[in-house]
Amino acid sequence: MGATEEKIMEKRIHNFSAGPAVLPVEVLEEAKEHLLSLPGVGMSVLEISHRSKTFDNIINQTRADVKELLDISDDYSILFLQGGASLQFSMVPINIMPPKNKADYIVTGSWSKKAVKEAKRVGTVNIAATTEDTTFNRIPKQEELKLKADASYVHFTSNNTIYGTQWKSEPEVGNVPLVCDASSDIFHKKIDVNKYGIIYAGAQKNMGPSGVTMVISRNELLERSTDDLHSMLNYKTHVDGNSLYNTPNTFGVYIIGLVTKWLKNNGGLDKMYEVNTHKANLLYDCIDNSNGFYKGHSEKKSRSLMNVTFNLSTEELEKKLIAEATEAGFNGLKGHRSVGGLRASIYNAFPTKGVEELVDFMRDFQSKNN
Amino acid sequence: MGATEEKIMEKRIHNFSAGPAVLPVEVLEEAKEHLLSLPGVGMSVLEISHRSKTFDNIINQTRADVKELLDISDDYSILFLQGGASLQFSMVPINIMPPKNKADYIVTGSWSKKAVKEAKRVGTVNIAATTEDTTFNRIPKQEELKLKADASYVHFTSNNTIYGTQWKSEPEVGNVPLVCDASSDIFHKKIDVNKYGIIYAGAQKNMGPSGVTMVISRNELLERSTDDLHSMLNYKTHVDGNSLYNTPNTFGVYIIGLVTKWLKNNGGLDKMYEVNTHKANLLYDCIDNSNGFYKGHSEKKSRSLMNVTFNLSTEELEKKLIAEATEAGFNGLKGHRSVGGLRASIYNAFPTKGVEELVDFMRDFQSKNN
Repeated sequence: MGATEEKIMEKRIHNFSAGPAVLPVEVLEEAKEHLLSLPGVGMSVLEISHRSKTFDNIINQTRADVKELLDISDDYSILFLQGGASLQFSMVPINIMPPKNKADYIVTGSWSKKAVKEAKRVGTVNIAATTEDTTFNRIPKQEELKLKADASYVHFTSNNTIYGTQWKSEPEVGNVPLVCDASSDIFHKKIDVNKYGIIYAGAQKNMGPSGVTMVISRNELLERSTDDLHSMLNYKTHVDGNSLYNTPNTFGVYIIGLVTKWLKNNGGLDKMYEVNTHKANLLYDCIDNSNGFYKGHSEKKSRSLMNVTFNLSTEELEKKLIAEATEAGFNGLKGHRSVGGLRASIYNAFPTKGVEELVDFMRDFQSKNN
Repeated sequence: MGATEEKIMEKRIHNFSAGPAVLPVEVLEEAKEHLLSLPGVGMSVLEISHRSKTFDNIINQTRADVKELLDISDDYSILFLQGGASLQFSMVPINIMPPKNKADYIVTGSWSKKAVKEAKRVGTVNIAATTEDTTFNRIPKQEELKLKADASYVHFTSNNTIYGTQWKSEPEVGNVPLVCDASSDIFHKKIDVNKYGIIYAGAQKNMGPSGVTMVISRNELLERSTDDLHSMLNYKTHVDGNSLYNTPNTFGVYIIGLVTKWLKNNGGLDKMYEVNTHKANLLYDCIDNSNGFYKGHSEKKSRSLMNVTFNLSTEELEKKLIAEATEAGFNGLKGHRSVGGLRASIYNAFPTKGVEELVDFMRDFQSKNN
């Protein structure tokens, strides 16, 4: 590493952004090293054809790593699409709401609501539960869910970035296919994919850069996609084309491949869950032991391991904390306008050391402003 | 530059890929230098929030540069979307074919045909002209166009990568809005944007990496987009959201910004056109002076400055040339299976020196195999 590079490294700050978010430094370093030429290829990954042997190896290895990390069976297809979770809000109902054209949605935040809005353009949406009456500060209990036995699917959002809540286990939905927007907690722990019909996730929080969406779909659901759908909106197009029907975000897929390699090299998803739990507990313990100086937004049982949301007694004090934290190199702590306060997003790639330093900073701030 | 970096640079080969394609080496070098941290930001461009001031500056500067390079008036909006030209094949008719639901399409290759296929899902398509009977080896003449005065728009493909043909000037379409898929020749010269209703272009040929699509749309056309459209498929959503309704491909937009800066630093689009004409002429002269050893696929009048397509007398000889060229560091010369032979894609970023070296190589090959 040259002197210039060391200087750049030194300057990296703590990035608590909700997404796009921090990436593993090892991933950035490898991408940087090879940015002018992939080893033995003589071209940048930004320049290679998506039909080349080189990219074929990249996308196939990435898919294989995803399959291994989540232990996905051959009953599922793994797609790398564009358009973010927002396009999936439409693609899911367009593809699998027919022919019955009715689906159950569990509403736990702004993203669930956006998903509902698009689904209503296709058919009838039954709100199986919503926690909006308490500013989405909790995940509904199983017994609260008013599910319809004849729904085409049940949709839920596994983690709610804005409110800092997270499902601890999937809702039980019987034989109805379960569809999950896992954009903000994919890969944070091992889940049983067999319980799902479709899992989709924008890459930019826990998986890679923005501009790629991973879709994991049970193959039998593809039968619902009819040939009259627009080609780019039809899951079958992308399954048949191995995610290469049109040019994918090649660089995005490459970075996801580096992230999955990093996950494998760092103990896989069980280890990741252990580290994530530890990191989140450091922050929640700080909040819970602050004698009310810090107040968590989420009910304890619904707390997210990915996004820790909390308030202080006044907006003025919150502003002061954010300003001083930013000055000290803790970036992106301002909470979403819907709940105000602060939010520390601590995805897989966020280092434990950074959380420890924030906790020290918060304790110090409390002692000075109590 | 360190010893390792020099070795990597040395190893870069001539990339004649049709897309994703070669990028300016200055762009790759700048992206590489800042990949761990943007100057003064302390985070990688891959990690910054799309709502941050830093990204705001990037997308606004990129838009301003595009506006300056193409001299675009305030009557137009410039969008950076996802899904490639392939999604635009659907978004164009979904948004602007209603309420009349009929449009004219000029078919000059495989991409035009794909655009027709999606448009037919929305309404009636009139094929105003097609050159398929001669394997798309030419652009139709103005007098061949059977345009309908009441069409919602006229669609054409400005450059045809597979066949190596290109429109020298826009078709004349009267008061009907002109829609252009300019994916493979955007920025290759200055055009009069005022003649167009919509110009769209996937970035991965002449503008940046794959995963971003630029759409330049006349604002008055937005009135045709109705509120019942899926949000992500509605141009109005993206105009209102300043291309930030959902998370865009932030890295892709950043690279487009570096490319537009490079274009401005290198004399702008008039200079680019001069260089592109020179580069293409080097190859076409080699073909025309080969006594029939090399045969251009396109009619002379329709020849593309971006993709030079040609055949040899036998497939065996073509294979031999491709193999020896690849061995010598000329990559991506194999023609598309639709026309066979060879294709040299020489977009803006492809260096003149590389074309000169290919011409030398071709002359040498001819003298040895004549």
